[in-house]
Amino acid sequence: MAVCFMMTGWDPGPWTERVLSARADLDLRVWPDIGDPAEIDYVLAWKPDPAALRSLPNLKVIFSLGAGVDHILEGGDLPDVPLVRIVDPDLTSRMSEYIVMHTLVIQRRFRFYDGLQRQKVWSHGDDVAASAVRVGIMGTGVLGTDAATKLAMMGFDVAAWGRTQKDLGTIPVFAGADQLSDFLGRTDILVCLLPLTPDTRGILNMDIFRGLSRDGVLEGPHIINAGRGGLQVEADILAALDDGTLAGATLDVFQTEPLPHDSPFWSHEKVTLTPHNAAMSDPVALTAYIVRQIERFESGLALENVVDRTRGY
Amino acid sequence: MAVCFMMTGWDPGPWTERVLSARADLDLRVWPDIGDPAEIDYVLAWKPDPAALRSLPNLKVIFSLGAGVDHILEGGDLPDVPLVRIVDPDLTSRMSEYIVMHTLVIQRRFRFYDGLQRQKVWSHGDDVAASAVRVGIMGTGVLGTDAATKLAMMGFDVAAWGRTQKDLGTIPVFAGADQLSDFLGRTDILVCLLPLTPDTRGILNMDIFRGLSRDGVLEGPHIINAGRGGLQVEADILAALDDGTLAGATLDVFQTEPLPHDSPFWSHEKVTLTPHNAAMSDPVALTAYIVRQIERFESGLALENVVDRTRGY
Repeated sequence: MAVCFMMTGWDPGPWTERVLSARADLDLRVWPDIGDPAEIDYVLAWKPDPAALRSLPNLKVIFSLGAGVDHILEGGDLPDVPLVRIVDPDLTSRMSEYIVMHTLVIQRRFRFYDGLQRQKVWSHGDDVAASAVRVGIMGTGVLGTDAATKLAMMGFDVAAWGRTQKDLGTIPVFAGADQLSDFLGRTDILVCLLPLTPDTRGILNMDIFRGLSRDGVLEGPHIINAGRGGLQVEADILAALDDGTLAGATLDVFQTEPLPHDSPFWSHEKVTLTPHNAAMSDPVALTAYIVRQIERFESGLALENVVDRTRGY
Repeated sequence: MAVCFMMTGWDPGPWTERVLSARADLDLRVWPDIGDPAEIDYVLAWKPDPAALRSLPNLKVIFSLGAGVDHILEGGDLPDVPLVRIVDPDLTSRMSEYIVMHTLVIQRRFRFYDGLQRQKVWSHGDDVAASAVRVGIMGTGVLGTDAATKLAMMGFDVAAWGRTQKDLGTIPVFAGADQLSDFLGRTDILVCLLPLTPDTRGILNMDIFRGLSRDGVLEGPHIINAGRGGLQVEADILAALDDGTLAGATLDVFQTEPLPHDSPFWSHEKVTLTPHNAAMSDPVALTAYIVRQIERFESGLALENVVDRTRGY
């Protein structure tokens, strides 16, 4: 059994090192130096070349190295083997750290008070409690559910929206296109944790921003996108920030990454941006997950978190 | 029955307005224009003048308008009536918002990424997960317990320290002077939510800072003080930041408030400061709490959260 790393735009060096320090017994190969292609049973992939995947005659499973699989499906024409996405508690927890921090930064006006400190001004207005701020999570998968639960526990007034109805306990869930405008109309801070699929591409656009509540306790609606850059229409975000439709945007992902040096997002005063690090994949935790899946598969058990290619996640 | 606001350094105007809009039936008076002193049964106090309190012959209860009562006890020579502190879910929740946000800001290196954005640099190192960061909460009262619980839920490795042993479920509790050094030795981020008493005054000093762990995943130990300014020795904080004993300090409270314009804290690059707004008292919520206490008292039930004056909280 051989396992092959197939990564584009990402240095596999630190990964292989840590994977081998955790599982020295693995026959680990790094594309393109993979030896005999017939020996490769499993691929761990980030933006893999579909032709390279098709050149492996005995490939059994493709494992995504990220929570999303858009980076694999977008290449098209994949071999007909199961595609497994990562569901890792460590990655989920890191994503919720990011979402809870940036939601609090907006609600607690971190940047306003930072400005007062720089001006040496001791002053505050009426701070709003989390309970007065309505957060709307787009995405009711593992990431959306964890973020929604933790935001609710912090006191925020949370709702979620997804493709289909789900039970998130006390958190109201809006489902499908029919209930989208009701969901947006009760949202002050919109958090996007959707998978990128043909249905969701460009969903963060001016129509959506215009649907957000304008009668909340914040100075205007905010968005946080920690999903994928392809979910957002960047010209619409800039226009919405500039005409006041949005009061702020926190963006971890972009249509082009790394974000080009001439992007207006870098220096926009209403934008907080981070370098796609909301939820870093931890090599040790991910290896443990993938090895567990391989062991299940080899002992005849079903793989977990297999992607439905029609649905796109 | 008359209720009297007795506040120093705090404008009672907005308070009385909102209290009366919630309870128009209250005979509410504002010191020093209180009419007949014999008619005052209850005082709602912030830094009250003890002589003024002693001038009320029929005073039954003093209610603190903050979570702490140091601002009342410090004046000395109070009338011998019960002193009640505020235990309000809204105030508790706001304090935990502040603590969780600032702990995440340190762990997730918010300021580092902010600097990268300003420099238009797309880069990140190995971000650490909350589970690798050890947070130590000083104070196991209502505020400390809520913050500890929420930080643990966010994934942090949390412990607490208090005067006496308490059961905080899965969160380890260190108690008393004997266990202080063990507590500090496993702490990367020290959060202070202690009451200010003769025992705790100046507890945040160089000895404590030197006891903090130096082998954690952060670049060095951090402190967050959202208790009272009197808990901290400000010269020691500055010295510890400058000699590297501390990597950062987040301070909501100061020995002198408002913080004087010439304080070096304002522009210290390792200091995040806020204007004592970590947990604002909400007039409506506090009035509801105090009215409930008065109703309990008048119907012969015991007051809740009565201060033990020897203990100081």
